[in-house]
Amino acid sequence: MQRKEFRELTSVEDARILVNGIGMQPKTISILIENSIDHIIAEDIVSRVDVPSFNKSVMDGYAVRAEDTYQASETNSCTVKLIGSVPAGCQDRFFVGDGEAVDISTGAPIPQGADAVVMIEQTKQQGNDISIDRPVHIGENIMRAGSDIMRGERVLRKGTRIGSREIGVLSAIGKREVLVGSVMVGIISTGDELIQPGEPLEPGKIYDTNSYALNAGVIECGATPVIYGIIRDNDLDMEEAIDTAAGECDIVLTSGSTSAGAGDIMYRVIGEKGITLAHGINIKPGKPVVIGLIDGVPTIGLPGNPTSALTIFNEFVAPLIRRAIGASTDPKTVITAVLGTSIRSQGRHQLLPVGLVRGKVYPADKGSGAITTLADADGFIEIRPEIEYMDAGTPVGVTLFGDVTRPDVLFVGGSCPGIDLLEDLTGLRIRVIGAGSSGGFSAISNGTADIAGVNMPDASGEYNMPIIKRMGLSGVVLIKGYRREQGLITRHDSEISKIWDILEHRLINRNRGSGTRALLDIKLGELAGEKGISLREMTSSITGYDSGAKTHRAVCDAIMNGRADVGFGLRSAAGEAGLKFIKVAEEEYDLLVPKHLLDIGEIRALRECLVSEEFAGRLPAGIFVYEDSGKRIEL
Amino acid sequence: MQRKEFRELTSVEDARILVNGIGMQPKTISILIENSIDHIIAEDIVSRVDVPSFNKSVMDGYAVRAEDTYQASETNSCTVKLIGSVPAGCQDRFFVGDGEAVDISTGAPIPQGADAVVMIEQTKQQGNDISIDRPVHIGENIMRAGSDIMRGERVLRKGTRIGSREIGVLSAIGKREVLVGSVMVGIISTGDELIQPGEPLEPGKIYDTNSYALNAGVIECGATPVIYGIIRDNDLDMEEAIDTAAGECDIVLTSGSTSAGAGDIMYRVIGEKGITLAHGINIKPGKPVVIGLIDGVPTIGLPGNPTSALTIFNEFVAPLIRRAIGASTDPKTVITAVLGTSIRSQGRHQLLPVGLVRGKVYPADKGSGAITTLADADGFIEIRPEIEYMDAGTPVGVTLFGDVTRPDVLFVGGSCPGIDLLEDLTGLRIRVIGAGSSGGFSAISNGTADIAGVNMPDASGEYNMPIIKRMGLSGVVLIKGYRREQGLITRHDSEISKIWDILEHRLINRNRGSGTRALLDIKLGELAGEKGISLREMTSSITGYDSGAKTHRAVCDAIMNGRADVGFGLRSAAGEAGLKFIKVAEEEYDLLVPKHLLDIGEIRALRECLVSEEFAGRLPAGIFVYEDSGKRIEL
Repeated sequence: MQRKEFRELTSVEDARILVNGIGMQPKTISILIENSIDHIIAEDIVSRVDVPSFNKSVMDGYAVRAEDTYQASETNSCTVKLIGSVPAGCQDRFFVGDGEAVDISTGAPIPQGADAVVMIEQTKQQGNDISIDRPVHIGENIMRAGSDIMRGERVLRKGTRIGSREIGVLSAIGKREVLVGSVMVGIISTGDELIQPGEPLEPGKIYDTNSYALNAGVIECGATPVIYGIIRDNDLDMEEAIDTAAGECDIVLTSGSTSAGAGDIMYRVIGEKGITLAHGINIKPGKPVVIGLIDGVPTIGLPGNPTSALTIFNEFVAPLIRRAIGASTDPKTVITAVLGTSIRSQGRHQLLPVGLVRGKVYPADKGSGAITTLADADGFIEIRPEIEYMDAGTPVGVTLFGDVTRPDVLFVGGSCPGIDLLEDLTGLRIRVIGAGSSGGFSAISNGTADIAGVNMPDASGEYNMPIIKRMGLSGVVLIKGYRREQGLITRHDSEISKIWDILEHRLINRNRGSGTRALLDIKLGELAGEKGISLREMTSSITGYDSGAKTHRAVCDAIMNGRADVGFGLRSAAGEAGLKFIKVAEEEYDLLVPKHLLDIGEIRALRECLVSEEFAGRLPAGIFVYEDSGKRIEL
Repeated sequence: MQRKEFRELTSVEDARILVNGIGMQPKTISILIENSIDHIIAEDIVSRVDVPSFNKSVMDGYAVRAEDTYQASETNSCTVKLIGSVPAGCQDRFFVGDGEAVDISTGAPIPQGADAVVMIEQTKQQGNDISIDRPVHIGENIMRAGSDIMRGERVLRKGTRIGSREIGVLSAIGKREVLVGSVMVGIISTGDELIQPGEPLEPGKIYDTNSYALNAGVIECGATPVIYGIIRDNDLDMEEAIDTAAGECDIVLTSGSTSAGAGDIMYRVIGEKGITLAHGINIKPGKPVVIGLIDGVPTIGLPGNPTSALTIFNEFVAPLIRRAIGASTDPKTVITAVLGTSIRSQGRHQLLPVGLVRGKVYPADKGSGAITTLADADGFIEIRPEIEYMDAGTPVGVTLFGDVTRPDVLFVGGSCPGIDLLEDLTGLRIRVIGAGSSGGFSAISNGTADIAGVNMPDASGEYNMPIIKRMGLSGVVLIKGYRREQGLITRHDSEISKIWDILEHRLINRNRGSGTRALLDIKLGELAGEKGISLREMTSSITGYDSGAKTHRAVCDAIMNGRADVGFGLRSAAGEAGLKFIKVAEEEYDLLVPKHLLDIGEIRALRECLVSEEFAGRLPAGIFVYEDSGKRIEL
C-alpha cells in the first residue's frame, strides 16, 4: 500500500486564484417563468412594451375632464352627463367632451378627451347625471402609459437570481419564457464505508450524507445536480464513474478518498486522467481536497467528512458554479458581531463554524467529521493562519449560512422533556446543547449559556446549591424548576425490582457529568456503605457501569434492544418507551440564568411559562411542578 | 350596474386576528430527501442511530494503545508492530494488544484494544515496524460513537424549513424520506383585461402578473401552487373556477374583481357560495380584499393591482399558508435603519415599500398599480394610521423581502449606456432611477441620490454648471463625465437630413425634464429666432412635440414602428436600433456626487472606472471620454 503525505499545501489565497482561473463556458436554456425560481437570468431583460401600455384608471369612478370639476365642493357640487361605461379590458372608443363623463373601472383605459378620474366615493348618480363634490386635478387617479416600466428599459440585469418579484416583472412585460444559465454538476460519493440512507446500517458503515447535502447546495446555487451514487474505493469503478460524469456534466464533484492515506485514490485518478491543479489546501476544515481538470471539466475531489466537504463546497466550489452559471453576485451576507468566548487557533487558515445568540459569537465545532457542526452553526468566521488567539469581546465578521433561523436562547445542560415543552409552548427557538448538568454549570460560569438546566445531587441529598457554592458562582440566579421521578428502567418481563438487582444484571449507565448518573452513584454508594465496601469496589463489579448513554431515550433503547437489562432514568422516558419503571428517588431540576438576562423578553417568557397552568398540565407523567417552582435564588 | 362602496373597513389588527382564527388541518406527505428542499418538516425527527455508530478514526494513521507512545519523542521514537490494516467500511475484527498497531484509514472503525490513532505524518514504517516520534493521549484522533448525533436525540424539530444542512442531518441518520407539510394553493386571476404572458398584447389589455408572482410566493412558503389561469369577469365562469379550486385545494387565492366597483363580482361570489369574513381592509396598498370561507376552504380575493396583491399576500396569506403547512417560524427579517428623507402619510395603515441604500431608507413607491414598486424595493416599513409625518433621520424597522440583493449605489438622472457600462465594469449594483437630468439635479439637492447623471444645456451652450448655479447647489462635487453625440434619428429611407425637416414630419420627442429634450428646444429656439417667431409658436406647429418617450430606445422604437418619422437622441441608440443618425450637437454628460460620499469605496470605484482604458474602449460609438473626463469641480 502506497502512502503519500501532503508535503506542500496550497494557501487559501492561491486556491482562490486557481479556482478563479478555471475557464467556464456558460450554457443557457429557455424555461417557463413559473419554473424559473432561483435560476440565474442569462441575458439583460429589456422591455419591449410600456407597462401599462395605455393610460389606465387606478380607481373605480368616472373619467372626466378635470376642468369641469374645478368649481366642485361639498356644498356646491357640479354635474356631468354619463355617456357610457368602460370596464377593464374594454376596447371601445369613447370621446369625453366638456361636461361629460364615462363610468370607468380600476384598470380600464382612460377614454380620449378625459384627463382625470373622480373616485366613485366622491360622486352621486341620478339617472345619467353624475354629481361631483370635490375637484380633481389633471392626471388624478390615472397611471400613465409606461410609468411603471418604459419600453426600452433594462428591467432585469443578466446574472440576477430570479425570485417572486423578478417573476412579477417578467410576466408584466409579457415574457413567458426566460433564458437562464444552465450548469450540470455531477455528484459522486466514494468510500467502502458508505451506505445509502434508508438502507439498514451495518457495522463499521456510515450513511452517505455528502451526496444529499451537496445536491441541496448545488440547487441553492441555481444549478442542476446529478447524483451518481456511491462508488466503492477501487480505481476501475472510480474511473468509470468519473468518465461518465465528466462526459455528462459541466463540473464534477466527488467526496471522499482524497487524503494521502491508504486506499485513497481520488488524487491518483484525477492525476492520471487529467491535470491536478492542487492537492491539499492549508485550510481547516477541508485540508484534503483535490482540484483538477478532466477533459477540461473541473473535477473537485472534496474531503469525505461532511463538514469539511460542505466548507470546501461553500468556499471554493459554489463560487465556481455561480460563475459558470453567470450569477452576478455572491449571496454571502457578512455581519459583524463580538466573540462571546475566547478562541485559540493553531496556525491553519480556519473557517470556524459558529453559532450566533443575540449578537454574540460562539464556536459550534464538533470536529470536521460531524454533520451537526454545520447544522448547529449560523455561519463561520475566518481565522487567518497568523492568528493564534482572540479574546472574548473581539469584533469578528460572521459569514452567515443561507436562510438561518437563529435561536432566541442558548440552553446548555441536562436534557429534559420539560425543556422541549417550554420551547413548544413559548414558541421560542431554543438551541439545546445536551451537555449534562456539569456542562450546564460550566457554561453558566464561563458565560456561554443563556440558561442552564441542572439536576445535580450532593451526597447530602440536596440538589444543585451545594455545587453552586463549591464553584463560587455569582451574578447568577437559580430558578427552581420542577421535580422528576428517577428510578430503574427495565423490561416488563424482567425480574428486576430493586436497586441492588443492578449488581446481577447488565446496566446501561448515563454519561459522566449527567446528574442522573450522579444520583445513581449516590444510591449505589449507600448500598456500598451497607456492604462495607467502597463505591469503586461496588461499581467495578457492575457489568456496563462504564457505559455512557447520553440521553434517557438512549438508555431505553439499549434495554429495548436487549443490549442491557436495566437502566436508571426518568419515569417519563420509560413511559414513552413502554418500559417498566421502579421509582427510586425524586429529584429537583432547576434552571440557572445570568442575572443580567433575567428580565429580557425571552427569559421572562420562559419563566412565565414555567409557572403556567398549561405547562403544569402538559408535563409527562413523572415530571411535575411543585410549590417551589418559579422561585428565584440570587447568587 | 350595481355599485357598492366600502363603508366599513376592517382594521389591520382585526384582519390579522380574523386570519389567525381560520382553522386549518395540516396535511402531510412523505417525500425523498433530495426533493425536500424548502419543505417544512411535519414531525419531530428523532435519531434511531448513533452518528457515528462506532468509534471512528478521523485521521489516516495507526490505531495503537496510547500508553505505548507515552515515552515517544523526536529524538527517541518508540516502535510498535503492524498486525493488519483497517480501511474505511472494514468489518474485520482486529485486537490491538500491547506494542501492536493497525494501519487505519480516516473513517474506519477503531479496532478493539486500541484507544488512540497516531497520524501517519508522525510515523515511519520499515517492514512491519512502525516508529512513532510523538506521544498520543487516549482518544486522540478518535471520534466516539454518538458524539455527533446521539441515538434518541431530537435532531430536527417539527416545523423546521429544510435546507442543505437539514438534508445533511437527515441523511446522516439514515432517513431517505421525510414527512413534510403539504398544502395546495389554488391561484385564479380574474379580469377581462388580462392576457397571458407570451401572447401578443392587445389595446386596453395588460399581462397577467399575479398568477406568476403568487405562484412563486406560494413556492417560497413551502406549499404547492396550482395555477387555474385567467377567468373572465362573469359570475358563471368565476363560480365554476372557484368551485373547482375549492374542491382541489386547501386554500384558494383569486386576484382582481374585489373592489366595490362596476363588474367586480368576487365579493358577491364569495358571499353567495360561502361566508364573507371581511371585505375591505384599512391598509395601503391593498384595501380591496375579500376574505371568506367556501366549504371551509379559506378563499381570499386579492386586489388586482400587483403590488397590492403581493402586499396582502405577504401580510395575511403567507402566514396562513405557513400555519397550514406547520411551519414553526416566520422568516421575516426586520432591521432598523434611518429614513433618508421625510415621509408623509394619510391616515391609512400603510405598508410602504422602501429601498435601502447603505443603511438609509427611501420610499420606493410608484403606486399600487405598479409591479416595479415591489421589484425595486428591498422591504417595507409599517406606518400606523395615526402617524402623519416622519422626519428624515427617524429610525424605522424595515421588514426585508426575502433574498434581496441590495444596491451599492443609488443613481438618479438621465439614462445613458455609459452608466450601464460603469455598472458592468465595476461589478457594483447600481439602482438606476431614470428621472431625466432635472430629476438628477433635484435628487442630489434633496440628498436622496448617491450619484446623479446630468446633461442639461443652457441657452449659452454651457452644460450643467448654469443650472447648478441657479439652484445654489453646495456640498456637492461635479465630476466631468464624457461627451455624447446628439442628433436626428430617422429611418434610412427617410428624406430627413436637417433639423428643420422636423417641422414637416411626425416627431417623437423625449419627456419633459430630459436634457436631450432641452437640447432640442435650444436648437428649435435658434430656428425660431431665425424665423422671427417664439419657441412656443414654433413647437405648437410640430406634430408630436408633446410626446414624451422616456428613453432613447423608446424614441427609436417609435420610429421603427412607424409611429413617428423623426426623433432626437443619441448616436449610440440610433446605432443599436439600426437607424440613421444625423449629428446636430455634442453634449457633456456629467456626474454629481454629494461631497461626503466622494471617497467611499463604491464612488471611488466608479470614478476610477470612468478614467480607465477599458471604459474608454468599450463605450459605444457616439459616446467618448475626453481631456476633461474625471475632473472634479467642488460646489
